[in-house]
Amino acid sequence: MTSIPYIDEARLWKRHMAMAKIGALPGGGVNRPALSPGDAQSRSLLARWAEDLGFSVATDPIGNLFVRRPGADDSLAPVMSGSHLDTQPTGGKFDGAFGVLAAFEALQAIHEAGIVTKRPIEVVSWTNEEGSRFQPGCSGSSAFTGAIPLDRILAAVDRDGISARDALAAVLSSERGMAMRPLGFPVAAYLECHIEQGPRLEEAGIPVGIVTGIQGSRWFAVEVLGDEAHAGTTPRRNRRDALVAAVAMVSALERLMLDEEDRVRFTVGRFEVQPGSPNTIPGRVFFTIDFRHPEASTLKRLGDQVDAVCRAHAGPCAVTIEETFHSLPTEFDPTVVAAMRGAAERLGVRTLDLSSGALHDAKFLQDVCPSGMLFVPCEGGISHNEAENAKPSDLADGTRVLAETLVALANA
Amino acid sequence: MTSIPYIDEARLWKRHMAMAKIGALPGGGVNRPALSPGDAQSRSLLARWAEDLGFSVATDPIGNLFVRRPGADDSLAPVMSGSHLDTQPTGGKFDGAFGVLAAFEALQAIHEAGIVTKRPIEVVSWTNEEGSRFQPGCSGSSAFTGAIPLDRILAAVDRDGISARDALAAVLSSERGMAMRPLGFPVAAYLECHIEQGPRLEEAGIPVGIVTGIQGSRWFAVEVLGDEAHAGTTPRRNRRDALVAAVAMVSALERLMLDEEDRVRFTVGRFEVQPGSPNTIPGRVFFTIDFRHPEASTLKRLGDQVDAVCRAHAGPCAVTIEETFHSLPTEFDPTVVAAMRGAAERLGVRTLDLSSGALHDAKFLQDVCPSGMLFVPCEGGISHNEAENAKPSDLADGTRVLAETLVALANA
Repeated sequence: MTSIPYIDEARLWKRHMAMAKIGALPGGGVNRPALSPGDAQSRSLLARWAEDLGFSVATDPIGNLFVRRPGADDSLAPVMSGSHLDTQPTGGKFDGAFGVLAAFEALQAIHEAGIVTKRPIEVVSWTNEEGSRFQPGCSGSSAFTGAIPLDRILAAVDRDGISARDALAAVLSSERGMAMRPLGFPVAAYLECHIEQGPRLEEAGIPVGIVTGIQGSRWFAVEVLGDEAHAGTTPRRNRRDALVAAVAMVSALERLMLDEEDRVRFTVGRFEVQPGSPNTIPGRVFFTIDFRHPEASTLKRLGDQVDAVCRAHAGPCAVTIEETFHSLPTEFDPTVVAAMRGAAERLGVRTLDLSSGALHDAKFLQDVCPSGMLFVPCEGGISHNEAENAKPSDLADGTRVLAETLVALANA
Repeated sequence: MTSIPYIDEARLWKRHMAMAKIGALPGGGVNRPALSPGDAQSRSLLARWAEDLGFSVATDPIGNLFVRRPGADDSLAPVMSGSHLDTQPTGGKFDGAFGVLAAFEALQAIHEAGIVTKRPIEVVSWTNEEGSRFQPGCSGSSAFTGAIPLDRILAAVDRDGISARDALAAVLSSERGMAMRPLGFPVAAYLECHIEQGPRLEEAGIPVGIVTGIQGSRWFAVEVLGDEAHAGTTPRRNRRDALVAAVAMVSALERLMLDEEDRVRFTVGRFEVQPGSPNTIPGRVFFTIDFRHPEASTLKRLGDQVDAVCRAHAGPCAVTIEETFHSLPTEFDPTVVAAMRGAAERLGVRTLDLSSGALHDAKFLQDVCPSGMLFVPCEGGISHNEAENAKPSDLADGTRVLAETLVALANA
């Protein structure tokens, strides 16, 4: 390695602002649904930037977009970095876009520094990470890694009845002439930059997080059945109040999930009461549980108690508990984590080890190649919100560590 | 008085079944929200029955419906009887409807017996007694008696954003040509028949209850405001989870309201969570409190603590508590109670003295004229439930006592 890639903070920021104009919302946020005309526009902007620098651009059968800089031995599997360009319906400027633009800035900086790497380096934009238009999300990475068959992904239909297959065909038809590559070609290593979407880096005043893994998730749906009765006349001893039972369950689950370290993520986000009349004792409550933890053992120990805790607090009501999603924690590859840490040390960038609360495309890549993630702080930890914000210097610091790591891995 | 009105048990039952077809639910119950198209249909059915018998029909600015049979001195204030035709969202066939149909059966029986009364007799159907669509309930009787100003009642908005004013206008526009009377015209006495909505008459095997009073009620609306945030990434210490706060409030209120004698009636019937997404921390919860007690002192002591208990359990969230209704315990007029008792004795119908757990329109009428209520048993004490049921012979016994009392009061 003869020189250090120069990360241009202003250029990186300008590209974020240019990308955020596509699907811009009045409140400062972005609405760029997967495989929408806006998504196509953001792809063609990235492709234009790439072609201006002489990089080749290609896609694949799920519409992932690849920008490639050749390696000294171009037959070797590439080192890859990226994220996604689709957004939540009222999303921000940085969720996803930062990972793609950081990878592209790193590639340009490596190129301009005249660094020759043994392996090719590629930038990727994965299709439909958010899953807000087509469910489930992470379509591009799960098709690429084989986690979900392509046909099943393309069969998803949005709220207007449009299939992912048709929406993708429309996007690809506007990109005629672009090279088509197969799903699942070999990748030597994968790196993803992302805003933290939580407050820890900002609170610690540290610009870069080394993500050691993605926490596991277990989701449950709970239905409590009692008897509707008159609120003014029914004595307590005769009541089967579904709300009283559900409140007792949620209180007990909160006690179960209370950890001093504050690593458990426990949320009851939906809680629906029927009939919902002020003067009628509720006969039915439906609620959801979103429980996450970075350790498989804790995920199992606490998650396995949900059923019993709900039953123990049902009182005179009936309860059914269904586990709707179960995803084990992911640990990123130790060699990639070590490479990121080493790069940050060489650059003198302070880092904090973190585990990711949210799911990302890197979770799927880790199943097929050594992978890792870098986080940068976001203002107040706010994301999935138009108010989402990040500091140009933090974005640049994350990108510096990324570029340094990419070069190291591409020469390994 | 030359003859005894003949109550036709089969006709009375048939009218209940006809009324229950409007808004019928698959489970045997009825959903007829106040001022809905179904409510309008039930009004026009009653109006048609009245006009078929030559009775005049009128309404007033809150949409109460009056059916009138003239008195020998038609300038005298009428004796009035009725209840309501709106239902709970999953209500039964008898709550409310029985009071209106009993009054109508009594009026028809008096008419067919050729009995001339000194005072006019009127049947009334009060608007929005249930309060499940527009809060608070007893709209018709509280507007008529001046307990709540008409403008405030009409400003209430339902879950779909429709105001009571617009819903009422739609109902009245379908009844063009109906006579309009002022709110609060003089009433000589008011009687209301109702199913007990509790188990005591059935347990005692007695067909008619003489209601001596109504317990007091205090209703509250509580709004809890937190912050929406990502369920997977936001640590507990940074959360302002409106559901966690609301659950803590309801748990604490349950402890406050726990009495050994089981005389307190405490219900949280509405509990709405926003945005209601499984993976987003709730930013807002709205819930209602329905608290009742027969003693004014307990009503005050416990009710006055609701505000402080909610505030004490708000945690990091903001909370506003509004008392939406405050009704002291009511004692019905002794002369009306005596008239009902005398009528039952003359007819040889066994009665039991009761206090009402539920609120009824009669509570508001008692503030402006001598009033009373008659209860009949309902199966298992079940009400505000599709399974609500009553025996034709009990309904007829209550109606017999009602007719006899109406004639006595209309000649007093």
